[in-house]
Amino acid sequence: MTQNIYDDAGFFQNYSQLPRSQRGLDGAPEWPALRALLPSLAGASVLDLGCGFGWFCRFVAGEGAAETVGVDVSERMLARAMAETSAGSVRYEQADLESYQPPVERFDLVYSSLAFHYLVDLPAVFGRVAQALKPGGRLVFSVEHPIMTAPRHQTWGEDQSGLPVWPVGAYLQEGRRVTDWLAEGVVKQHRTLASYLNQLIGLGLSLRHVEEWGPTPEQVAAEPDWARERERPAFLLIAAEKP
Amino acid sequence: MTQNIYDDAGFFQNYSQLPRSQRGLDGAPEWPALRALLPSLAGASVLDLGCGFGWFCRFVAGEGAAETVGVDVSERMLARAMAETSAGSVRYEQADLESYQPPVERFDLVYSSLAFHYLVDLPAVFGRVAQALKPGGRLVFSVEHPIMTAPRHQTWGEDQSGLPVWPVGAYLQEGRRVTDWLAEGVVKQHRTLASYLNQLIGLGLSLRHVEEWGPTPEQVAAEPDWARERERPAFLLIAAEKP
Repeated sequence: MTQNIYDDAGFFQNYSQLPRSQRGLDGAPEWPALRALLPSLAGASVLDLGCGFGWFCRFVAGEGAAETVGVDVSERMLARAMAETSAGSVRYEQADLESYQPPVERFDLVYSSLAFHYLVDLPAVFGRVAQALKPGGRLVFSVEHPIMTAPRHQTWGEDQSGLPVWPVGAYLQEGRRVTDWLAEGVVKQHRTLASYLNQLIGLGLSLRHVEEWGPTPEQVAAEPDWARERERPAFLLIAAEKP
Repeated sequence: MTQNIYDDAGFFQNYSQLPRSQRGLDGAPEWPALRALLPSLAGASVLDLGCGFGWFCRFVAGEGAAETVGVDVSERMLARAMAETSAGSVRYEQADLESYQPPVERFDLVYSSLAFHYLVDLPAVFGRVAQALKPGGRLVFSVEHPIMTAPRHQTWGEDQSGLPVWPVGAYLQEGRRVTDWLAEGVVKQHRTLASYLNQLIGLGLSLRHVEEWGPTPEQVAAEPDWARERERPAFLLIAAEKP
């Protein structure tokens, strides 16, 4: 079973202070790249796995989606999502993504932002996602990049010229990684990039785009602290289509 | 234009001592993984880009390929390839892969082992490869993994527990990298993994398998020195199909 760290009081408190929690999609630097992978949303049926505070569900409703289902395991996050959502086309469900069973051939878009790297049995979840898509439907998701999740100790180093480097180790050893991000003992699952891709290919999905996200030069100019985030990709964004 | 390091006397001398140069495909630890991506070869037309000493061309002829064309820029390598090849179905051509123009819709398999990371204009080469494939034909290739080619200084480090790490930097900065592998000043081109994949997708090819190769536990048991090669993938293997 996946750890539900988002209902940990300290983690939730810290997570709520992040720009992406306070400013929504525009506070997430990878959002423009993720948005570019979305299909047309007018009249669409959308499933958001790990919907958090519901920012994406509300965005999708605003773009004219006919039906949006947001699923999250965190009661605290869903409480705020519901309080802040007025669109009647959006519905929230509390469920563990590991066991959530979506309806079959129902969605034009299954979306997930930075949730899948928490899941232990991702192949099973991908299998249900593939079933839940209509033919021609699209899966668009982001996870922490495998380069980021691989190391036993996830900290920056310096090369012989004093430039920042991200020391990669244990890349081919998939499984549990424990980090202290916003709280101590946050458990994530490391998978190779090839694992993500081959699981989707094996389900008959067609890969449409793979993005190894780092801030654009413009973003670095606006936020100079982000410069080192171009040394190694922070996020992996994938779009795949059901034939 | 791509540097032709293989005709450098010192490099050639050192390269000729490698297990993969002396023992052929069985001397290349990634060969079983690459071989698993090949289509059926009986009666096939095959193009090998960067054929080197011709080991793969001879293997393919032995598997019953109808026609095999091996292309390489290195005169020294082709001289040995020709001397060691007796199969009448194999033909060698000397050409710079950057400008080589293969016939259109001619091949069931285009293969390349550890050559594409030398090419400056890979999108143009991929474009001609896509044209050269028959419908249903397959491109199978290996390159040095982008995690390996990214850093400004390509050397191992140690983490705080004394375990080997590969310090990744400059990952999102594509382009020229100079290393001292078998000779000083060997020039390779770093590309992100996403770049390789999106170029193929953009050409209408369908990704069939992506492998981030490291030695298997059995290989490490036989060659304990290879253990650290599981810390970060050494090679990237890709199979893509023309619809």
